[in-house]
Amino acid sequence: MAAAGVPPTPLVLGLDLGGTNLSGALVASDGRLLTPPIRRRHSNGGPDAVVSEIGEMVVSICSRAKRPVTAVGIGVAAQVEEGSGVVAFAPNLRWSNVALGTALRDRTGLPVAVVNDARAATVAEWRFGAGRGVSDLLLVFAGTGVGGSVVSGGRLLLGDRGASGEVGHSILIAGGRKCRCPGRGCLEAYVGGWAIAERAREAVDEAPTEASSVLREAEAVGNLDAAAVGRAARTGDPLAVRIVEETAGWFGQGVAGLVNAYNPARVVLGGGVVQGWPEMLVAVEQAVRTHCQPPAAGAEVRRVALGAEAVLVGAAAVARDRLTAAVPT
Amino acid sequence: MAAAGVPPTPLVLGLDLGGTNLSGALVASDGRLLTPPIRRRHSNGGPDAVVSEIGEMVVSICSRAKRPVTAVGIGVAAQVEEGSGVVAFAPNLRWSNVALGTALRDRTGLPVAVVNDARAATVAEWRFGAGRGVSDLLLVFAGTGVGGSVVSGGRLLLGDRGASGEVGHSILIAGGRKCRCPGRGCLEAYVGGWAIAERAREAVDEAPTEASSVLREAEAVGNLDAAAVGRAARTGDPLAVRIVEETAGWFGQGVAGLVNAYNPARVVLGGGVVQGWPEMLVAVEQAVRTHCQPPAAGAEVRRVALGAEAVLVGAAAVARDRLTAAVPT
Repeated sequence: MAAAGVPPTPLVLGLDLGGTNLSGALVASDGRLLTPPIRRRHSNGGPDAVVSEIGEMVVSICSRAKRPVTAVGIGVAAQVEEGSGVVAFAPNLRWSNVALGTALRDRTGLPVAVVNDARAATVAEWRFGAGRGVSDLLLVFAGTGVGGSVVSGGRLLLGDRGASGEVGHSILIAGGRKCRCPGRGCLEAYVGGWAIAERAREAVDEAPTEASSVLREAEAVGNLDAAAVGRAARTGDPLAVRIVEETAGWFGQGVAGLVNAYNPARVVLGGGVVQGWPEMLVAVEQAVRTHCQPPAAGAEVRRVALGAEAVLVGAAAVARDRLTAAVPT
Repeated sequence: MAAAGVPPTPLVLGLDLGGTNLSGALVASDGRLLTPPIRRRHSNGGPDAVVSEIGEMVVSICSRAKRPVTAVGIGVAAQVEEGSGVVAFAPNLRWSNVALGTALRDRTGLPVAVVNDARAATVAEWRFGAGRGVSDLLLVFAGTGVGGSVVSGGRLLLGDRGASGEVGHSILIAGGRKCRCPGRGCLEAYVGGWAIAERAREAVDEAPTEASSVLREAEAVGNLDAAAVGRAARTGDPLAVRIVEETAGWFGQGVAGLVNAYNPARVVLGGGVVQGWPEMLVAVEQAVRTHCQPPAAGAEVRRVALGAEAVLVGAAAVARDRLTAAVPT
């Protein structure tokens, strides 16, 4: 029986809005999931449609909770102005200046914390996962896009407008491939899932005889994505193997440059491309040892510990922190 | 008449040890120089020789002070472990693991603060110069080498081993030109003074008919450095103009990538290449506006305010801070 006067722990819902999928679950204060995560493709049909889909998921999860949900945290694949909850720029959602926090609060009646997805995952990995115990941490996520976040001196870096840590848009090859952001040659334009798919399609078109039937068939049905490249590489397809090796080499060099710039004690890597392609972690470890200057070259390199739910776990943790900060003690 | 019991302000000597030059002056607590700066080429003849030259400069400056000097701060073009005063790695001095702080303390009898030169200049520009009033600041110095330093959320980033901010060794072109550091394709390997000179020599060798007599003559006497390229470009020499434009374009893209990663409110640029080539500042401003994502694209871009003495002024400020921290109040 709960002691009289001790309020129950707030019940917080975490969401993860990516370029393709939306997922959500109730999250405990120690980072454990209290409900199995729900995951579905969203329409990517603009802010109104997506807010409506998010609202439906919130209602659906809340309806299964035994007591009222008190806050929502949402991690978004976007540059977010955290104070205002505005999504400043989301290339993969094709949003700019969307007041997501306000729209979701109006729709759900709950306080909403909007957080950059990589930063949410950083909070989760730093508190509950592969980053525990470290004060200087670099997280890089290579999924559809490439995001990242930095903890320096025991503090998560925010930057002037909350956009620090957009490491996917640091330069890999100046003047190189067009990115989905306004720039060219960004790390994401080479190792993000969309960029891998684009490079694979180009490679098949340029060298149709070299391309295995697997890659050509995938392209023919409009399904030549990063996952298809990974599968083809596992079967020894030479073109796919070359794409995987190039991608890993680029990722290694890009992350090593970031390690020079930030000098983290530990680098934690995640996202679909890292999880699916073991070459990525190996390449980063090697590049950090050979490319970086001492003492930065000594950084540990690890894989994320929390898996696909890190973003929603971290977003929930941020929402919980804000509740705690808002309640006078 | 000084009030009894009020000790005089500590008299602090600031030094700047670059790859080529050594300079020093006495520095007031508000960043002003109390003595005209002394500047001379050092031998670059290894740690013992250089420590001896530094010691001579300290003695020479102290001998002109009206009261005893109480501390020395030295900014070094190197990765520095600030706690121990060890120069971990200085590519342009070809030093690694040199206990400079201990050696200078033994030689001068004074407490010595050893600081990365770019970080020292950051402290100076942030407190006394072009960075005043800003909590999120990126400084990039393009001289012989390229260094930088970052203030985020009102704190100077240190990194795990004090090596944060080595932005000259973030990637510009993966797999590209060999850097003086262990890596390839670093920003410094394209826009550092030594790299500009190397690229100019290659360009003259590859296209001797295109190269103006000025550049060819400079190469013939072993004097084709970045300054010579700049001078030739001012006279309209097409090859020199091309090198300056390429360099500015690369610098712009490299800095824009850093702006994406750190989201500073203001970017402050300095170093001989920036000061000598107005194209560099213009290219950064343009690249930040066109390459960066909002909200990072809104960063202000300015030139340093303090000039050549920023490193020694900042090193003195750090030494003064440590004295203050060490004295119980």
